Amino acid sequence: MNFERIDMLRTQIEIYGFDGAVMIPGPTLFYLTGQSFHLMERPVVLIVPREKTPVVILPEMESDRLEAAGTALNVFSYGEDDASRSAAFEQATAMIGFDQRLIAIEPLIFRYLEFDLLSSSAPRWEFQSGVELFTALREKKGPSEIEAMRKAVDIAETALIAALPLIKIGMSEHDLAAELVVQLLRAGSEPELPFQPIVASGPNSALPHSTPTERMLAPGDVLILDWGARSNGYISDITRTFAVGDVDPELNLIHQIVLEANAAGRAAARPGATCHAVDQAARQVIQEAGYGEYFIHRTGHGIGLEAHEPPNIRSGEMYALEPGMTFTIEPGIYMLGSAGVRIEDNLLITNDGQETLTSLDRTLDVVG
Amino acid sequence: MNFERIDMLRTQIEIYGFDGAVMIPGPTLFYLTGQSFHLMERPVVLIVPREKTPVVILPEMESDRLEAAGTALNVFSYGEDDASRSAAFEQATAMIGFDQRLIAIEPLIFRYLEFDLLSSSAPRWEFQSGVELFTALREKKGPSEIEAMRKAVDIAETALIAALPLIKIGMSEHDLAAELVVQLLRAGSEPELPFQPIVASGPNSALPHSTPTERMLAPGDVLILDWGARSNGYISDITRTFAVGDVDPELNLIHQIVLEANAAGRAAARPGATCHAVDQAARQVIQEAGYGEYFIHRTGHGIGLEAHEPPNIRSGEMYALEPGMTFTIEPGIYMLGSAGVRIEDNLLITNDGQETLTSLDRTLDVVG
Repeated sequence: MNFERIDMLRTQIEIYGFDGAVMIPGPTLFYLTGQSFHLMERPVVLIVPREKTPVVILPEMESDRLEAAGTALNVFSYGEDDASRSAAFEQATAMIGFDQRLIAIEPLIFRYLEFDLLSSSAPRWEFQSGVELFTALREKKGPSEIEAMRKAVDIAETALIAALPLIKIGMSEHDLAAELVVQLLRAGSEPELPFQPIVASGPNSALPHSTPTERMLAPGDVLILDWGARSNGYISDITRTFAVGDVDPELNLIHQIVLEANAAGRAAARPGATCHAVDQAARQVIQEAGYGEYFIHRTGHGIGLEAHEPPNIRSGEMYALEPGMTFTIEPGIYMLGSAGVRIEDNLLITNDGQETLTSLDRTLDVVG
Repeated sequence: MNFERIDMLRTQIEIYGFDGAVMIPGPTLFYLTGQSFHLMERPVVLIVPREKTPVVILPEMESDRLEAAGTALNVFSYGEDDASRSAAFEQATAMIGFDQRLIAIEPLIFRYLEFDLLSSSAPRWEFQSGVELFTALREKKGPSEIEAMRKAVDIAETALIAALPLIKIGMSEHDLAAELVVQLLRAGSEPELPFQPIVASGPNSALPHSTPTERMLAPGDVLILDWGARSNGYISDITRTFAVGDVDPELNLIHQIVLEANAAGRAAARPGATCHAVDQAARQVIQEAGYGEYFIHRTGHGIGLEAHEPPNIRSGEMYALEPGMTFTIEPGIYMLGSAGVRIEDNLLITNDGQETLTSLDRTLDVVG
């Protein structure tokens, strides 16, 4: 348990007007406990009330994992039978109190199973989305988190450098994706990758969320690789675009435009700048070059324990960046039916600007 | 969309007394649609009413994925703004009807996000766990599912055979686990493995749910490998135990007992046998050999699209097996502090008995 972070959570619970918060296995529970619990048929629930001692409900076989917390945490464990599980929920909620309470939950994670068990034990508790509260808790990264993200970037870049010489004409997207996974694991990524690598060649490169197919790399293809590693729970998420042999000269032009958009987006990122302004800085370069209609997604998204988290670097998002926030800048141009280019970097907002965590060469290298 | 399976779902909805069922991305949605949707911030919801046309709510960018279904499915897609999303939920629920309805949900998957959106649109709908309904829908596998599981077994066995010569004394559990992942991908597993391989050496082998550590393989170690592959969504889940060099002679004895327990459990599996009886058949061998207290988990669990699904092969489970059910048989003996042995196979209940899908050698091979 990280009691400093529990205190940060209590502060947010108070700011957002809740009486407590409930977490089940997921990034926030990992953030607070330092332990990876799996989301399985046996519930694990952490209840942090605004004032009283936090409570954990978990299966007996996992109860030793939080023993070190001592008296600062009340642990209720249950056996294999339903009665024992219900009793643990009854006792845990009784310790916090059955009276009316407004409890913050994570709507993208909180399940019906735990909702039902808690509602049965404490029918007067009211559950409500605490998205802003949890965002406020986790969006500004501390030194140990930034260190883990640097490591995740380093692993991903090392993996790509090892994979590049293995790329051959005639290799399928699927096989290249498997090779990238191999190199990510060899370079030290945790086995639970942030996402499966995207390998998009030829016309597939024009689809931003393409998944690897049996299509084989051919001379003249543009090739988009979008991959990331995980270290101590934190992720990296990088994209580079390559040329397989000689490519259409227009692609060099498009690549140059995306490169400039990427640089403009990164240059605009600083404390106080809005997500909207950063998006516009990148978008404007592409629009002015006449390719605006082909940049069909947002400029970036937050990264951390999750591959997609706040902040949302998109048009209209008037949210201001603050030191410690980490996110991607990934402009692209997608010419449906022919080819696409995307260049994605990982940024950290510093006290006076930004630091680009990724340093891998961004030129349109020839492979195959 | 697989409308034959939609009809099977309707039958179960009727049998279990519901008015409809709601699915979000997960194994059941894959089973019904043949499409892998990701559980993300943008909800994807399939509502199957007992009588009317099924309805899907999904993001615009994914709306083409179900177009082939034609008029047999009502598709409501939404854009990036909240108003558009709410409108899609309003229209979709209106088409089914706002009056009181009892809707089956999957409590281990259904999230607060979708619960809240649906409840806001159709406040008179009541959601209730449909665990038995969904189990009945998916637990008996059809020919295409069994074919995929055979393939997942074949990939996992091929991967292990490729990995065995690479096992060396001094190699860490973590590195061996990474190597197993590499071989699983090379052998053709889908990148989303059913679970990260367990590599448990020496005293770690006595912990059934051990995760790979930096511990290095040493002469005299027992080594448990527990791994699986995924093919067309379906998984395999195999365990074999090895000796690193010469091991304590008692381990040969223990291995022989577990081997006999595994054989006894498999022999007891047939249509009409209860899960309890199969568990007891395996457990009795270990108890009679005097190691009963060291077999600290159930004998097996169902497998299919998920690595853990019904049936639950444990003591007290009076549920009868039926043709088409697929599960593991995995007795073990765990001597805390010293060593453990587990042998896990994958079974299919046939019309007149069982077929063991796994065929990899079960002897205590020496590696390293």
